[in-house]
Amino acid sequence: MALSHKGLPFETIPWHLTDKSAIADSGQGRAPVIEDGEHTLHDSWRIACYLDSAYPNTPPLFTDASAKAHALFIKFWCERDLHDAIRPIIILDLLKAFHEKDKAYFRESREKLFKMTLERFAAEEEKKQAALDRALVPLRDSVSLNQYIGGAQPSFADFIVFGAFQWARAVSPTQLVTSSDPIYAWRDRLLDAYGGIAGKAKGYAV
Amino acid sequence: MALSHKGLPFETIPWHLTDKSAIADSGQGRAPVIEDGEHTLHDSWRIACYLDSAYPNTPPLFTDASAKAHALFIKFWCERDLHDAIRPIIILDLLKAFHEKDKAYFRESREKLFKMTLERFAAEEEKKQAALDRALVPLRDSVSLNQYIGGAQPSFADFIVFGAFQWARAVSPTQLVTSSDPIYAWRDRLLDAYGGIAGKAKGYAV
Repeated sequence: MALSHKGLPFETIPWHLTDKSAIADSGQGRAPVIEDGEHTLHDSWRIACYLDSAYPNTPPLFTDASAKAHALFIKFWCERDLHDAIRPIIILDLLKAFHEKDKAYFRESREKLFKMTLERFAAEEEKKQAALDRALVPLRDSVSLNQYIGGAQPSFADFIVFGAFQWARAVSPTQLVTSSDPIYAWRDRLLDAYGGIAGKAKGYAV
Repeated sequence: MALSHKGLPFETIPWHLTDKSAIADSGQGRAPVIEDGEHTLHDSWRIACYLDSAYPNTPPLFTDASAKAHALFIKFWCERDLHDAIRPIIILDLLKAFHEKDKAYFRESREKLFKMTLERFAAEEEKKQAALDRALVPLRDSVSLNQYIGGAQPSFADFIVFGAFQWARAVSPTQLVTSSDPIYAWRDRLLDAYGGIAGKAKGYAV
């Protein structure tokens, strides 16, 4: 989304969770990783900062330092409040979606982290959907008043939060928000943006 | 804080919760209300928008439309996530701090809203402190990396969130964050800002 927003051409490389060697150049073991000429970077926030700095004559991901600092708050909200609320709802679908060779690694590493089985982590679905509804309040209120979190135009804050929904959509048929929710319309706008690149990505039509 | 940030002189009027007639000019019954010449406005967000528009040659509360849209998200986070987490912790101190003539109105209106007694609403203090700690994650992460939510300078997003802490400080000796918490240092910076106007306001030294 960030590269499309900036109009920068790119190629994506299919990747499996345990293919650590494929991203070893980044000096760590997690996606996303970007290669741009001599530069190899990881971490979506660092990549966004790099792109604005390396390509100053393209549409900005952050319009100024204050917008960027505010977006950082939204990033932290997304990483904790939103991801924590979505994760238990999709985790068993996420497990199913992994390549066979990655499933054992995923289950073992996550069960160690959560200190419980994935099945127990996913239990009490209705409670978890209610917790997600509650966590979504600031997003819902924002996109009820504005087209995007960034206002009339999407900003990197939109792409961060949209990424959480795209993560779910790629693996799970569960509908996270109803079609009458302003969040649903906001997500639709981003699925359609930039020639529909996100909408064309593999995923469930939910 | 917003008026001080903009260097605009002002007078404050002491006000009691049930003095609805004193703010009747605003066409509604809740503080804050501001009078500026012919203009009477309520709601802190609307007031902030008015101030940036009416006094364009003073330091901005929002540096641009995107920073403002992001701040709106933080406002909604503050109103729900943060206020909901602080409220049960301070509510009995808040009741005590009201003028005698306001106590009955406060108890009755809030108990109706919460559908329980204030005492029950305040119960299980440790659980409520843990919920606050959890709710504070995006703020803590932000002010660990930046001086202010707005970056190197405070923005209106800082004042919105700081307002929640100032609300607590005015009425309650409860320490919401420990002195080693980055949030504590951030609050200190704002208590000291603009000649220490917020630090000099009546309140507990917590």
